[in-house]
Amino acid sequence: MKALTIEKVGSPVRLTEVDMPVKREGHSIVKLKASALNHRDVWITKGMYPGIKEGAILGSDGVGVLDGRNVILNPGLRWGENEAVQADDFEVLGMPVDGTFAEYISIPNEYIYDQPEHLSIEQAAALPLAGLTAYRVLMSRCQTKSTDKVLVTGTGGGVALFAVQFAVALGCDVYVTSRSEEKIAKAVALGAKGGYNYKDETWYKEVETNFDVIIDSAGGASFQHLIKICKPGARIGFYGATLGKYQNLNPQLLFWRQISILGSTMGSDQDFRNMLAFVDNHKIKPIVDSVFSLEEGSRAFERMEAGTQFGKIVLKH
Amino acid sequence: MKALTIEKVGSPVRLTEVDMPVKREGHSIVKLKASALNHRDVWITKGMYPGIKEGAILGSDGVGVLDGRNVILNPGLRWGENEAVQADDFEVLGMPVDGTFAEYISIPNEYIYDQPEHLSIEQAAALPLAGLTAYRVLMSRCQTKSTDKVLVTGTGGGVALFAVQFAVALGCDVYVTSRSEEKIAKAVALGAKGGYNYKDETWYKEVETNFDVIIDSAGGASFQHLIKICKPGARIGFYGATLGKYQNLNPQLLFWRQISILGSTMGSDQDFRNMLAFVDNHKIKPIVDSVFSLEEGSRAFERMEAGTQFGKIVLKH
Repeated sequence: MKALTIEKVGSPVRLTEVDMPVKREGHSIVKLKASALNHRDVWITKGMYPGIKEGAILGSDGVGVLDGRNVILNPGLRWGENEAVQADDFEVLGMPVDGTFAEYISIPNEYIYDQPEHLSIEQAAALPLAGLTAYRVLMSRCQTKSTDKVLVTGTGGGVALFAVQFAVALGCDVYVTSRSEEKIAKAVALGAKGGYNYKDETWYKEVETNFDVIIDSAGGASFQHLIKICKPGARIGFYGATLGKYQNLNPQLLFWRQISILGSTMGSDQDFRNMLAFVDNHKIKPIVDSVFSLEEGSRAFERMEAGTQFGKIVLKH
Repeated sequence: MKALTIEKVGSPVRLTEVDMPVKREGHSIVKLKASALNHRDVWITKGMYPGIKEGAILGSDGVGVLDGRNVILNPGLRWGENEAVQADDFEVLGMPVDGTFAEYISIPNEYIYDQPEHLSIEQAAALPLAGLTAYRVLMSRCQTKSTDKVLVTGTGGGVALFAVQFAVALGCDVYVTSRSEEKIAKAVALGAKGGYNYKDETWYKEVETNFDVIIDSAGGASFQHLIKICKPGARIGFYGATLGKYQNLNPQLLFWRQISILGSTMGSDQDFRNMLAFVDNHKIKPIVDSVFSLEEGSRAFERMEAGTQFGKIVLKH
């Protein structure tokens, strides 16, 4: 079968002919119809990930068909029993274990779910990893309620957009940040109330101090300003930090105002089930930025690297 | 009546003759038998607190007698309905509202509780503010369970010692940090399993990465090391930051390991009730460092400033 593999760290992904997966006890072979890219996939090709196994099939997001059922895969393997944190042997689908950028995958049955019926194949492929990550940080970690005012930084990325969509569906007043006016406008079209352009580095000075929940993946030196626009009792959830370490955080602003800073990554099996049910209940449709074929895989990776996408980059198999 | 008041910012507290408090609707006049110092009192005399009202009676911790009952006062006034955070008009007893370093106090009835019977007057006076703060950060914010391994930094201070005692009573394995071997030994005598001397600035390098809960009030540049000795899923609760801003926090260590950094201050009425019940159930006895008379008030303040105390500095009226 055909698959996108990491041939060598530092080289683009390559479409190769690989052996069909072998069916193992407790696994099923799913015929994959579509998949989607995550930053993780790009980082792996660049060697920015621990334990890279050359020759592995990449891809964490996958939807396909099994015995005539449309199915969607939970990419979080072996979370374990503790809802608070993944087990030591937790793993994300796609390197080292073979992933979804292929015609078929062998996967343990417990990670196979019915695909929400209101979604196209492309929309469904966009959902798993980013939807799971957004759901956990927004709902399980920050315990966001309908009355909360929510800020999602860096709108445009997969997780950030799901956080916007989920919070809007909950009934929250949602705001975004971006350095692109176009992305802010698109977020508003999805139901956000407005946005702040952080090209102006003092953007936060214009913002009222009244966010109950902030979802961030930028971190870095500007994280300190998020604390200033929090309401007392606020929760700041974060699932990444592309700008690096936090600096100059003022503890007085945090402890006197009972603020929580909550690290989050991926999600438990329960989070995945809850996320699917939430998407189904609210008929949320993931935003697809663009669709490529498996053969165009390296172009899809280039688009991800460019960082101009709005929504998920999907591969149709 | 006699009272310790702040005559002028920058001057020591002074024992003065003031008017008896007037009984107001919904208030009672409690005859105070003992009180205790908190850092807050010292900071107020130094002008390191907002809204200082000269002439006010200081003191947040108080026990006394009302209609023959031994009573203990909740120093957290007007917390409000939201357990997550205090209301905007929340206030701590003792400046601007007249506090407990006096012969009598007029206080709303809802802040008056029966004193736990197993406590001496001095022990009971040591409990309110520090016990409440420790209870909230350890229990309500960090949700500490008996199976958690707990580190309390800077043992010796009132809140830190209550955090040690409460966690020991819960059944946790508790460790402390201090720059005094004597204080570490005293914490071990209270049931801690051991301690680390942070005079050695690389103390954290010798520590296993396995704390479920860390209670901190130092903050500063060394806060970053606390993250490194956390177990995945850990909660770091903090109620102060004597060493200032957090620097160089590594977000990857936080989000991948689902760590929570939880600011906390004082506690709700519910926290106070739960704290009293917990102290009563476990027959916890607050640690009294020293006892002064009201007349010796300025000496008590000097001892607090010196920072060598182990436990609470009590005033017996």
